Amino acid sequence: MADPYTPEPAHHFTFGLWTVGNPGRDPFGHETRPPLDPVEAVHKLAELGAYGVNFHDDDLIPPGSSEDERNSILKRFRRALDDTGMVVPMATTNLFSNPVFKEGAFTANDPEVRRYAVAKTLRAIDLGAELGATTYVMWGGREGVEAEAAKPVGAALDRYAEAVNLCCAAIRQRGYDLRIALEPKPNEPRGDLLLPTVGHALAFIGELEWPEMVGLNPEFAHETMSGLSFHQGVAQALWHDKLFHIDLNAQRIGRYDQDFRFGAEGIRDAFYLVKLLEDSGWDGMRHFDAHAYRTEDREGVWDFARGCMRTYLILAEKARRFADDPEIAEAMATAGVDGLHQPTSPGGLSSEALDELRAGEPDLEALAARGAGHERLDQLVTELLLGVR
Amino acid sequence: MADPYTPEPAHHFTFGLWTVGNPGRDPFGHETRPPLDPVEAVHKLAELGAYGVNFHDDDLIPPGSSEDERNSILKRFRRALDDTGMVVPMATTNLFSNPVFKEGAFTANDPEVRRYAVAKTLRAIDLGAELGATTYVMWGGREGVEAEAAKPVGAALDRYAEAVNLCCAAIRQRGYDLRIALEPKPNEPRGDLLLPTVGHALAFIGELEWPEMVGLNPEFAHETMSGLSFHQGVAQALWHDKLFHIDLNAQRIGRYDQDFRFGAEGIRDAFYLVKLLEDSGWDGMRHFDAHAYRTEDREGVWDFARGCMRTYLILAEKARRFADDPEIAEAMATAGVDGLHQPTSPGGLSSEALDELRAGEPDLEALAARGAGHERLDQLVTELLLGVR
Amino acid sequence: MADPYTPEPAHHFTFGLWTVGNPGRDPFGHETRPPLDPVEAVHKLAELGAYGVNFHDDDLIPPGSSEDERNSILKRFRRALDDTGMVVPMATTNLFSNPVFKEGAFTANDPEVRRYAVAKTLRAIDLGAELGATTYVMWGGREGVEAEAAKPVGAALDRYAEAVNLCCAAIRQRGYDLRIALEPKPNEPRGDLLLPTVGHALAFIGELEWPEMVGLNPEFAHETMSGLSFHQGVAQALWHDKLFHIDLNAQRIGRYDQDFRFGAEGIRDAFYLVKLLEDSGWDGMRHFDAHAYRTEDREGVWDFARGCMRTYLILAEKARRFADDPEIAEAMATAGVDGLHQPTSPGGLSSEALDELRAGEPDLEALAARGAGHERLDQLVTELLLGVR
Amino acid sequence: MADPYTPEPAHHFTFGLWTVGNPGRDPFGHETRPPLDPVEAVHKLAELGAYGVNFHDDDLIPPGSSEDERNSILKRFRRALDDTGMVVPMATTNLFSNPVFKEGAFTANDPEVRRYAVAKTLRAIDLGAELGATTYVMWGGREGVEAEAAKPVGAALDRYAEAVNLCCAAIRQRGYDLRIALEPKPNEPRGDLLLPTVGHALAFIGELEWPEMVGLNPEFAHETMSGLSFHQGVAQALWHDKLFHIDLNAQRIGRYDQDFRFGAEGIRDAFYLVKLLEDSGWDGMRHFDAHAYRTEDREGVWDFARGCMRTYLILAEKARRFADDPEIAEAMATAGVDGLHQPTSPGGLSSEALDELRAGEPDLEALAARGAGHERLDQLVTELLLGVR
Repeated sequence: MADPYTPEPAHHFTFGLWTVGNPGRDPFGHETRPPLDPVEAVHKLAELGAYGVNFHDDDLIPPGSSEDERNSILKRFRRALDDTGMVVPMATTNLFSNPVFKEGAFTANDPEVRRYAVAKTLRAIDLGAELGATTYVMWGGREGVEAEAAKPVGAALDRYAEAVNLCCAAIRQRGYDLRIALEPKPNEPRGDLLLPTVGHALAFIGELEWPEMVGLNPEFAHETMSGLSFHQGVAQALWHDKLFHIDLNAQRIGRYDQDFRFGAEGIRDAFYLVKLLEDSGWDGMRHFDAHAYRTEDREGVWDFARGCMRTYLILAEKARRFADDPEIAEAMATAGVDGLHQPTSPGGLSSEALDELRAGEPDLEALAARGAGHERLDQLVTELLLGVR
Repeated sequence: MADPYTPEPAHHFTFGLWTVGNPGRDPFGHETRPPLDPVEAVHKLAELGAYGVNFHDDDLIPPGSSEDERNSILKRFRRALDDTGMVVPMATTNLFSNPVFKEGAFTANDPEVRRYAVAKTLRAIDLGAELGATTYVMWGGREGVEAEAAKPVGAALDRYAEAVNLCCAAIRQRGYDLRIALEPKPNEPRGDLLLPTVGHALAFIGELEWPEMVGLNPEFAHETMSGLSFHQGVAQALWHDKLFHIDLNAQRIGRYDQDFRFGAEGIRDAFYLVKLLEDSGWDGMRHFDAHAYRTEDREGVWDFARGCMRTYLILAEKARRFADDPEIAEAMATAGVDGLHQPTSPGGLSSEALDELRAGEPDLEALAARGAGHERLDQLVTELLLGVR
Repeated sequence: MADPYTPEPAHHFTFGLWTVGNPGRDPFGHETRPPLDPVEAVHKLAELGAYGVNFHDDDLIPPGSSEDERNSILKRFRRALDDTGMVVPMATTNLFSNPVFKEGAFTANDPEVRRYAVAKTLRAIDLGAELGATTYVMWGGREGVEAEAAKPVGAALDRYAEAVNLCCAAIRQRGYDLRIALEPKPNEPRGDLLLPTVGHALAFIGELEWPEMVGLNPEFAHETMSGLSFHQGVAQALWHDKLFHIDLNAQRIGRYDQDFRFGAEGIRDAFYLVKLLEDSGWDGMRHFDAHAYRTEDREGVWDFARGCMRTYLILAEKARRFADDPEIAEAMATAGVDGLHQPTSPGGLSSEALDELRAGEPDLEALAARGAGHERLDQLVTELLLGVR
Repeated sequence: MADPYTPEPAHHFTFGLWTVGNPGRDPFGHETRPPLDPVEAVHKLAELGAYGVNFHDDDLIPPGSSEDERNSILKRFRRALDDTGMVVPMATTNLFSNPVFKEGAFTANDPEVRRYAVAKTLRAIDLGAELGATTYVMWGGREGVEAEAAKPVGAALDRYAEAVNLCCAAIRQRGYDLRIALEPKPNEPRGDLLLPTVGHALAFIGELEWPEMVGLNPEFAHETMSGLSFHQGVAQALWHDKLFHIDLNAQRIGRYDQDFRFGAEGIRDAFYLVKLLEDSGWDGMRHFDAHAYRTEDREGVWDFARGCMRTYLILAEKARRFADDPEIAEAMATAGVDGLHQPTSPGGLSSEALDELRAGEPDLEALAARGAGHERLDQLVTELLLGVR
């Protein structure tokens, strides 16, 4: 029988060039793996069943490349895409590696740096659009501060909004079919980053010039660093119709940004996330923004990539089983889940409805005595996860 | 010479009845202090220099009171207010103590519980308005879940929004001068709470029926539990014009909800918060939602209340000194803070402006070589805080 | 076919009376469940397959009971034990609920309080011994501080050691077959607790009068609150031969003390913990120090108890499968796990051995190029956990 | 008047070459500062008032240097020390940057890697001793794991102990006046590190061959990452007579390893730490293991170094004021601090003493009613810290 967890392009799994290409450098150690040719990455990921690859501008075109070099790189890269059927659904800009961004990019205090950051992004948007990307991710890795006195938050948010507006204006100017997805993160590499959570970024979008062009790219590791429930954050993004892209990986709470293989930590939260995406019929990419442990060689990198996709598929199957399990259905009924879908006030917001609410005389003791049955329900989910039901 | 840190009503310091009245119960131990009569609280807080008191419905009117008892309590309480000049700027509802709310209040799965929660709130809104409150705080302490399967997030947010809309409708129905302030919290007493941060609550408001009636009541301890910068969150709320109220206290990151005396932990973040409020000319209440350590008797409670206000005033004076300190001004100039207030694109979002941005050819090496001077600036702030400048 | 995850006394599962008896009170809400008669707890836990029950002195004998009441309670309780075959392997003292302990028990500043705390413990040791307990747990829930100036740490550790020594002396005086197990916790209900982790407690034991009488009772939730790996801490305790007892439950990092059903969070860490206990042949109790969600009624409490034991048994079976899985064995070989069991210096600590080490000329590049194969190994464990291998 | 916070050699401030030499690389960005010549570091630090410098072997002698190069570097470095009067009190080994250590050093699964790690350390011990170091720090930055199955903890601790024993044996073989100080850290750069806290390392020492040769080098940032109180951990290390060295810096709880300027975060904990060191008469080095923000140029680096020392001196003066402040003394008396220094059992551990304890009949209500006065005491400390008393 065929392995039921074999990834296929229809599953819409994507990887960043920087993920499988991660050379294993960390704050305390040098590279442990040689650079990976983007073309090799495309071929190997295609072979493993992925749907596409994403990149930062500098991942594909090394900074300082001439126009000829750029063209030759692009030609070779396109051929790899054509040969494999892989696509480029998302692109982004590296606004964090170059020392010029050490004090910020879109929110640097220095207007010249900000202008360069926007210009670099406009060029990267062109590159992304050229390769067919329909989502443009913005992660403000340097938009933050350690010395709070140096950066008034309100002014920084003004500049942040201005930069996103400029990018939207450019997309409209060129007529690209491209939406922007903001990626929140609470800290690292800066002491405190602006737009630290899914919530802060969602609120920020409401103040933009073209809010309909901008949504979110939540990342498992980033929300989890703050101890927030990732699937709850993604669910709120979906509730606002603002889930434009997603970054899947794994992370322990309260630690450095780990970017582990999807499912390597936080199995329960990963399951509820997959269930949410699958149940909601979300049709976007399942993008892995993660990398192999620094202990690994190239073979370990491909094991890492395989593992990300397999775990997603295993959890997706569990989401289907959840829906079909009669004991779970019974426990959901005991927990009264259906009741949450009914309006609280059947009469809406009218004066009569309010008066009716005020007139209610419920039997509080009887209501309070009802058990919710959550222990049983949660244990059924645990056993579903552990594969014994 | 008069003590420059003596609180006065003009400083707009307020306390909840539940804060100075906290009897010292915790999850592992019984009450260590006897109940405090609200009238005594009003008199003593007035004597200490506070401006007003706030309450949950049940703090003032014990659940189960008859109409007569209610009237008699109110009469006595009003007299204390009149005698002291204290006011009631804010009111709120206890939707968390009664076991009927164990599975949620506005987002309980059981529609009967939700209706009771809304009705209780409508009555508490009447009570608050009757006593002159202009802000109504909503903390959804039970709006969350441990067993994620039991509460689909999207449906729960629908019900949450419906409940807030019903309260707004009631305020409009009765013509009260009352705005609603949502109080986010990430967890405790539930495993994960809905609207876990300032950001999530700000975004949520955008989906309401009357978003202009609803803003935020951020709490120092609640944001800090997630390791987020409180003053940054408050600054974003101000940026959205949504700071309606504020809860001041102290907290260590990644712990149980401590509600310590303002300034007892996180001195630096407390300073930037005070500086932000004072610099922005924010004219709302400085409300302390904290309580004395469980080790304290009644005298310790008043020391606690005194300490909250004194520390605020000490930090407010430091904020004024910050503005007047020539070395700090010089360090701010070195850090280029003014540059953040200039638009990135002087030509706005026009096509010409975009083309001009694209055409820029900055000297990246020169820009990258500039030191930001943040170590010096931050050290000056440290020394200002430590009182040696 | 019989359910392979049915608990039996031979599995040595135990519960505290306070766990199934937890009435659902929390810092923000009142009790949601009525008190549970200890005799009913014994009968029901026996029916569910548990081996024994543990208690704090006050759980069994309400404070203030007369000698007659004590005897009558004990007689009834013993009969329940006799009728069911349940045993009492562990006992402990409540040194945290009574307000007298608000400033500490063994380390209270007031010598009278300390003397009372020791005396209460000596009486509880008698009670425990009378009922056959062979382990005495000490959790210093009030041994800590919020205002650091009030409690010099060195003096507090002196008093802590003195109190434990006094208890050891009393055990020796009466000739009990009883060992003491210290239970570390980082914070809650105090701001910072003494002996905050497994490590601190292990080190502390080395300074006691009879260190061989004292070991550890590590708790999953307590280590996890600090973000430490629980199974690693337990492994170090085993390495020191100091694992005397264990408290199993579940917890998210960086939160209030959750005491969830075993396996409800942290599945991976729970698995490695079970694997460690089973592989090491540890013959102690599998004690659950957890409680049902506050949403539950009595039936939910028993679902909770069932779930704790089932999940342990499911994970224990996975530990056995781990040992038998040929692909895992191959991945362990690739990771070179056997090599860790070989001495680094075959010649020991001699001068010749040192000189031989100094003379080594390894091929660093070749060593560095070897992949560790951890991605594959970890993914195999993930799939084992998810039940797809 | 002379600035009372001017550092002098008598204050015993030391810096690592790697701290002021930190080039600003981080996981997301390239170097922002050029390399710093160790000789320049020595001269500048001497000018700023430091007492000495410390180094990893590779900081001073680049890997791959020939014997001649080594000698020439050493000669030049010694001359700088002689010219400035600076000393080298501590040395250490870099066992983390080279990819050969990617899977561990002392606890790598591969015995060849372990042998190389020990041999490199033995050579670095020689280098340290040659330059007069009397403390040898061991930070096991790679002694950990992400894939738990790959490294059984007990075996890893065996190898760790063996490696430390080998180093002790070499120190004894060569007759060096050198003590070893272990530096704990909970995570980063590995998922979970062995010996994660002060406590775990203290306990570990008890199992070594020559425990008297080995103590601790606790680091502010490392304990704080886990949310533990640093000054409490250091106090326990002092209680065990095991504080051999200390690493001062600043850190927020639950984040990546920040290594900020001393006092830049956690002012209160920094104060209690300084007070502890000064009050206890600890005569070791005040070593800063921190680095300037990545935003800084060379001048910012020296501002950083100045700031570390100034803040220490400011806090040391506050510690003296604490001791002299009559209101604080009175509040300490109210808190009964003296009572903690009295034995709980004046009769010691004798049978009579136990019986006397058992016979006590304290008035629990009266004891429980006493207020501890911690709010007032803590507020006095806050005001001392803020410089208004």
